[in-house]
Amino acid sequence: MEIDYSKVKVVGFDADDTLWVNETYFREAEHEFARLLSGYETENKIDQELFKTEIKNLDIYGYGIKGFMLSMMESAIDLSNGRIDAKVMTKIIDLGKKMLNHPVELLDGVEEVLKSLSERNYRLIVLTKGDLLDQERKLEKSGLSDYFHHVEVLSDKKVSNYKNLLDHLEIPEEEFLMIGNSLKSDVLPIIELGAHAIHVPFHTTWAHETVRDEDNNGGYHTIDSLKEVLDLL
Amino acid sequence: MEIDYSKVKVVGFDADDTLWVNETYFREAEHEFARLLSGYETENKIDQELFKTEIKNLDIYGYGIKGFMLSMMESAIDLSNGRIDAKVMTKIIDLGKKMLNHPVELLDGVEEVLKSLSERNYRLIVLTKGDLLDQERKLEKSGLSDYFHHVEVLSDKKVSNYKNLLDHLEIPEEEFLMIGNSLKSDVLPIIELGAHAIHVPFHTTWAHETVRDEDNNGGYHTIDSLKEVLDLL
Repeated sequence: MEIDYSKVKVVGFDADDTLWVNETYFREAEHEFARLLSGYETENKIDQELFKTEIKNLDIYGYGIKGFMLSMMESAIDLSNGRIDAKVMTKIIDLGKKMLNHPVELLDGVEEVLKSLSERNYRLIVLTKGDLLDQERKLEKSGLSDYFHHVEVLSDKKVSNYKNLLDHLEIPEEEFLMIGNSLKSDVLPIIELGAHAIHVPFHTTWAHETVRDEDNNGGYHTIDSLKEVLDLL
Repeated sequence: MEIDYSKVKVVGFDADDTLWVNETYFREAEHEFARLLSGYETENKIDQELFKTEIKNLDIYGYGIKGFMLSMMESAIDLSNGRIDAKVMTKIIDLGKKMLNHPVELLDGVEEVLKSLSERNYRLIVLTKGDLLDQERKLEKSGLSDYFHHVEVLSDKKVSNYKNLLDHLEIPEEEFLMIGNSLKSDVLPIIELGAHAIHVPFHTTWAHETVRDEDNNGGYHTIDSLKEVLDLL
């Protein structure tokens, strides 16, 4: 596929599961949650109920760990028919706090790619969803802050969110490349906008972030490791 | 007091309790929370414990309703010595969701002031703390979005947060005026930075946002109603 990246001046990076590990900790927390409630339901049923509760609450809570904690609480009450013990609820709160305090684990090649692109005078920005405070904290812990000209935490990653941001930062579409692990959030809306995108799948992707094949119209590269960005740009 | 606002080009507004009512709903939720737990402790003791829990969790949860909900849950478990009923927990979740869905109630004179300042070509921006999604939703519900050139949700409102923002937006200190209800968050850091601030106290202010008199070195106007801004600028 011939894609011309020669006009690109600004490179946007998704953060969770593009720069550092994230979903893995959610999957681990879900397992732990299922274990805590194993007296009431099967792990499969617990997973399904928690996912349903998260989707139901997404409009009101948005993305991030605090909303996930609140949805775990609500599911725990539902799944136990109100018989849930306060000790278990405390464990759910502790589980969430542990996620919020988790050290940041960079993905392979991240520092190398950011360093190289910086040296070649690309303007690098971070575009992420989630809790503002949590994302700022992770960026600080990552030691990567100095590579980025701008950090934007978006409440969602739809075409309109990206359009407002590019307008606000005065970046023409053809000069913008977005790199991320989620087709739905980081790639398809960007292609629709007429900007560039590169997809770097992460081994674990939340069910809500997956898209069906027919939603995928092409026009972007998919790479196995972030390092391959250096072969494309 | 002689303060020269003639260089001001950009006016930043705090949102909660400056543009619209906010603390009142927290106070109402706290009363309701105390009522739900009245079998375990006095209202005074419940208030104190909840406040302690919120302060303890502020670093990890940040500002906003979701963190408040999680702190209510944690306090409920503690105050009841783990005897809390799941029905009460559900009521706490419902209390928080009701806050998140609350209609926006504009404060007196807000629309008049924004309209007048816009017409006089001041650039207006919103600078607020709290949950990103929640603040975006409130701004949309308020019908005020079109008055603002920029909306920034900050994880905190310390001198460094304001400094980064003014640098990023390329606004010189002397051209910036911040208007808000919190001395601690909206006024004192701005004065320290060498920009202008106007204090519009709200009748209810969260204990964490109050400052002792000796922290207050002057250099700003305090007004009773937002409309008085039009007499100063």
